[in-house]
Amino acid sequence: MKLVGIRDGRRVDVAVRIGDRVTPIAEVGDFYADLGRWLPQARRTDVGLHPVAEAELAPPVPPWARVVCVGLNYRSHAAVGGFTPPRHPTVSGRWASTLTVSGTPAPVPAGEPGLDWEGEVAAVVGRRLIDADEATAAASVLGYAAFNDLTARAAQKLTAQWTLGKNADRSGPMGPLVTADEVGDLADGLRLRTRVNGETVQDGNTRDMIFGVGELLSLVSHAFTLQPGDVLATGTPEGVGYVRDPPRFLRPGDVVEVEIDRLGVLRTPIVGPEQRP
Amino acid sequence: MKLVGIRDGRRVDVAVRIGDRVTPIAEVGDFYADLGRWLPQARRTDVGLHPVAEAELAPPVPPWARVVCVGLNYRSHAAVGGFTPPRHPTVSGRWASTLTVSGTPAPVPAGEPGLDWEGEVAAVVGRRLIDADEATAAASVLGYAAFNDLTARAAQKLTAQWTLGKNADRSGPMGPLVTADEVGDLADGLRLRTRVNGETVQDGNTRDMIFGVGELLSLVSHAFTLQPGDVLATGTPEGVGYVRDPPRFLRPGDVVEVEIDRLGVLRTPIVGPEQRP
Repeated sequence: MKLVGIRDGRRVDVAVRIGDRVTPIAEVGDFYADLGRWLPQARRTDVGLHPVAEAELAPPVPPWARVVCVGLNYRSHAAVGGFTPPRHPTVSGRWASTLTVSGTPAPVPAGEPGLDWEGEVAAVVGRRLIDADEATAAASVLGYAAFNDLTARAAQKLTAQWTLGKNADRSGPMGPLVTADEVGDLADGLRLRTRVNGETVQDGNTRDMIFGVGELLSLVSHAFTLQPGDVLATGTPEGVGYVRDPPRFLRPGDVVEVEIDRLGVLRTPIVGPEQRP
Repeated sequence: MKLVGIRDGRRVDVAVRIGDRVTPIAEVGDFYADLGRWLPQARRTDVGLHPVAEAELAPPVPPWARVVCVGLNYRSHAAVGGFTPPRHPTVSGRWASTLTVSGTPAPVPAGEPGLDWEGEVAAVVGRRLIDADEATAAASVLGYAAFNDLTARAAQKLTAQWTLGKNADRSGPMGPLVTADEVGDLADGLRLRTRVNGETVQDGNTRDMIFGVGELLSLVSHAFTLQPGDVLATGTPEGVGYVRDPPRFLRPGDVVEVEIDRLGVLRTPIVGPEQRP
């Protein structure tokens, strides 16, 4: 099952997408507050009510969702920067206000040489998790989505904390949520490719993740309680722009795509700072 | 004018507090979406409709507000750790779901030796800010509140990123929002004291801040667009627990208070991990 958000002013509904049509299920806050009610209703839906072309799509998570981002989580990627694999996952945070959908332009802030791409698999939490063990945490995943953790490297590197660089306006494009039953185990391997203007710049596989989704969500759940709708961005494989020689960044006019097996293609045009919202 | 939030289920209204009574003005999202309409209405309010004791108080900011936290921003505090004053402010992030009000117990996560206190002044943004200069940013502040940036040091220090340690459940107690006209310029000096079980552990003054509110909001607005309702936690003066010898932390049964001139007293009982929400 594929879930999308549909925006109407400040309201977002979660909807089932069937082919080129969508059927709204519930307001996004209501949806995640009572998944036991709304998920079965979504699964029973076999007719798309409205053409998707007439809907304004939005990320299918609540506006207060935490977006927990993991750094350096692929064996190959971690090796490129001259790092040894870390003992603990490095976790930084995004506010959900940065999340957008495929097709939404991402502006480069004025002080940046461009934005960097980080194609990733995002997992959406489907159950409240407190001090969860790895198996419980892994079983709590509602579904997965393609994600691009677009990063403003100048702001990220200004100090030791990444927060400013991980929260540029509209820097978190996220695809439709594909429920876990249709995705399977990330350790079995989903191929993940990132393309810039058609050229492949990342070609990785989720089987190379250092920390798995269950391990990551378990760790986070010991620090704070995860709620349905929270998002885990699981890290990016090798091939990002800033470690290249010379460094390469996304500039206005570029188009970046993230394509992941079973999760689809996420397409983001890059625009100038004058288009900041 | 003093603004508080009043919760009814998942809905929060912003209300004016007059003595021991409150008058709701608008749903918190509506309030910040149209401050030009609701602020004058709040200012015209001279009667408290309901006893505050009958209301469930909540932070007077939207659930999707960004809480931008500044580290090492007091001259004396920065000196204690053996640091030279930083060239750039260190900015980390909190999700608004960590925010609570005075009186709400804060649980210590199971893996922590306790929580550390960080008494701070929080500023709430009242205007959209994109690439704002310092003066514009300073003038955009709607008001200030006492804040305790309660920190889980083990999670904070696990890796270089502070996110996990700055987002423990209910670790962001925040006082009522006192509008800027009643507070004045932080550089003129507000005394800030933190007490643990009545004993003073921090006694600082906002005139010792390294980066001022205008400078901080200006910097952030170059990285991402600030929206009305976003919160800036301006950093804490010297006297936090983890740099003491031996280190000292808040344990279940302790009560921590932050008292700031013109902003009032914020009181937080500490409880055990079994009270995580």
